Amino acid sequence: MATLAHHQTHNLFSKHSFLTKPSSSRPPRATRVRMSLQENAPSLAVVGVTGAVGQEFLNVLSDRDFPYRSIKMLASKRSAGKQLSFEGRPYTVEELTHDSFDGVDIALFSAGGSISKQFGPAAAKEKGTIVVDNSSAFRMDDGVPLVIPEVNPEALSGIKVGSGKGALIANPNCSTIICLMAATPLHRRAKVLRMVVSTYQAASGAGAAAMEELELQTREVLEGKPPTCKIFNQQYAFNLFSHNAPILSNGYNEEEMKLVKETRKIWNDPNVKVTATCIRVPVMRAHAESVNLQFEKPLDEETAKDILKTAPGVVVIDDRASNRFPTPLEVSNKDDVAVGRVRRDVSQDGDYGLDIFVCGDQIRKGAALNAIQIAELLL
Amino acid sequence: MATLAHHQTHNLFSKHSFLTKPSSSRPPRATRVRMSLQENAPSLAVVGVTGAVGQEFLNVLSDRDFPYRSIKMLASKRSAGKQLSFEGRPYTVEELTHDSFDGVDIALFSAGGSISKQFGPAAAKEKGTIVVDNSSAFRMDDGVPLVIPEVNPEALSGIKVGSGKGALIANPNCSTIICLMAATPLHRRAKVLRMVVSTYQAASGAGAAAMEELELQTREVLEGKPPTCKIFNQQYAFNLFSHNAPILSNGYNEEEMKLVKETRKIWNDPNVKVTATCIRVPVMRAHAESVNLQFEKPLDEETAKDILKTAPGVVVIDDRASNRFPTPLEVSNKDDVAVGRVRRDVSQDGDYGLDIFVCGDQIRKGAALNAIQIAELLL
Repeated sequence: MATLAHHQTHNLFSKHSFLTKPSSSRPPRATRVRMSLQENAPSLAVVGVTGAVGQEFLNVLSDRDFPYRSIKMLASKRSAGKQLSFEGRPYTVEELTHDSFDGVDIALFSAGGSISKQFGPAAAKEKGTIVVDNSSAFRMDDGVPLVIPEVNPEALSGIKVGSGKGALIANPNCSTIICLMAATPLHRRAKVLRMVVSTYQAASGAGAAAMEELELQTREVLEGKPPTCKIFNQQYAFNLFSHNAPILSNGYNEEEMKLVKETRKIWNDPNVKVTATCIRVPVMRAHAESVNLQFEKPLDEETAKDILKTAPGVVVIDDRASNRFPTPLEVSNKDDVAVGRVRRDVSQDGDYGLDIFVCGDQIRKGAALNAIQIAELLL
Repeated sequence: MATLAHHQTHNLFSKHSFLTKPSSSRPPRATRVRMSLQENAPSLAVVGVTGAVGQEFLNVLSDRDFPYRSIKMLASKRSAGKQLSFEGRPYTVEELTHDSFDGVDIALFSAGGSISKQFGPAAAKEKGTIVVDNSSAFRMDDGVPLVIPEVNPEALSGIKVGSGKGALIANPNCSTIICLMAATPLHRRAKVLRMVVSTYQAASGAGAAAMEELELQTREVLEGKPPTCKIFNQQYAFNLFSHNAPILSNGYNEEEMKLVKETRKIWNDPNVKVTATCIRVPVMRAHAESVNLQFEKPLDEETAKDILKTAPGVVVIDDRASNRFPTPLEVSNKDDVAVGRVRRDVSQDGDYGLDIFVCGDQIRKGAALNAIQIAELLL
């Protein structure tokens, strides 16, 4: 892990294994030394490198031995000048400007929608950079692929690193990625007609500061003190609340409508019916989702489990005898999305409905990992 | 509040207002003195008086000035002999035996299904006691009314205190009560055909020990220590998991099937289609439920809100502009069930579907209050 992350989010990512269950199978990414940088590999830029997802970009690049010949660490003016160590080399965080993308083949953006809008299209058009953007800025734009590599890699056709042509590619919203990782293999077999989703979303979706606020609030509440509410407008510790995204005119919040609209685009199916209720729960970094599915063709639960067991990026945890099913904590810091509680929906006729419960790491597969998997497809 | 509860669950019920938001509008129930006991009022017994629901029975009896001429405090042998104070009078907890119900008009049971089975039917049959039972032991039995007073009071017809005839009456499961408090007023107008429920259930449903375990685990995890797992088989702090009820052969857990079956019985509608996914979240004493409704007749969201606003026992919290909706913490220690996020379901045609989000205090309306409201109807 880069030292900056270690410093900034010490409690959340490093110290308290029971808060977020970090994987410890590999040496820390800050000091782990890649044998050699590759001359022919792409030059990279990480935009928003000091944020929770930015830091996870570095973790995933290192974990997956993503090839690169150089890497720029970009952030706002406020963070510029900070030092960080990545794979045994020191880096200085640079201020993000339009010139930052000179000679950059792939830029991984996670610095919010307004930064993406300000710098993403220009980088793609003027500098020939392939921008993989984690914000919602371009997701629904025509001509911008919205991609989960296991689901719709074909949307990337024609985009290739080294072609000299830049591009904008959007990373879907975390809830959409985690939901569709589980629903898509079933959709391919039986065609989903309607999907009713209720989410249990972690603090991490609102950034590292939200994770810190949840931890701080929890300490305060246990001491009988009023909780500090800066990121959210109400108590989060030992509580849950409707997702803090703005409410739209139809009464849905933006997070919910992302699930509705992004599913249609990713599945290339404007008719699929989706509703969602998005709730924040006091969990650190992995989302859970209760998903009710209605199919066009029959699909029994054993077949569904078999399909999920062989689906890439999916692991089935469904032990009825010992009541073990996916939990956010167990998938934290893991690549795979976990699915369980797979069962025939008793409220639907025959085998035309299933209920499932899905958990996935919001920062990893819900953001950084998915973006880097997209970049891998472009090499 | 009875002193026993104050002693036993000090942290959860009294000290840490930010854990459970106790109401403080009335003097403590232990010392609050009722002007006079009523000679013509029924004699009461509270079975399981040392448990979380048992203690709340006392709170609610006091809060509602429930008339009584005597009250027996009953519990297991282990708790017998303990002293407690209620409404300014000292009581000794007595061991529960068959003879406990001699001369008892109304017995409020919350000591688990096996105790209910052992003592409930005998008390009703042999002692003429009206048993209001909070366990699941008799809920689905023919001839046992399963009652939410705001929903199906007619199921109590023929049962009356003072008639000399005993009876068994079942209190529905907490999740069912909270869901149907919101869904029934809409059902009456537009007839619910299908309901998809995902729950966010508090620790209290597993008793006071589970609430204490959540608090203890949270402290441990914040100190970097492994969490104590006695009540549940896995970490609860900063995590969530599929409800710990046993899984049935159809893949649903018992908690979920209670929602399915109890709804049919309470609505007297064997055809209503219900599915549920029940999840435990790290919240102390109030449940939340995401409920998707499909109607036979059209029901637009404004009409639905108007109906809910005038429904007894329901409060609407639905402020889209400031993103304020029901939360478990806000309904903790409150009588009313809160409903919000009322919106037309975009995945259904026209006005035939709604999504709502419901919160209710599990110990209060989900258990003790509902049982005492039943008893009030029998006076």
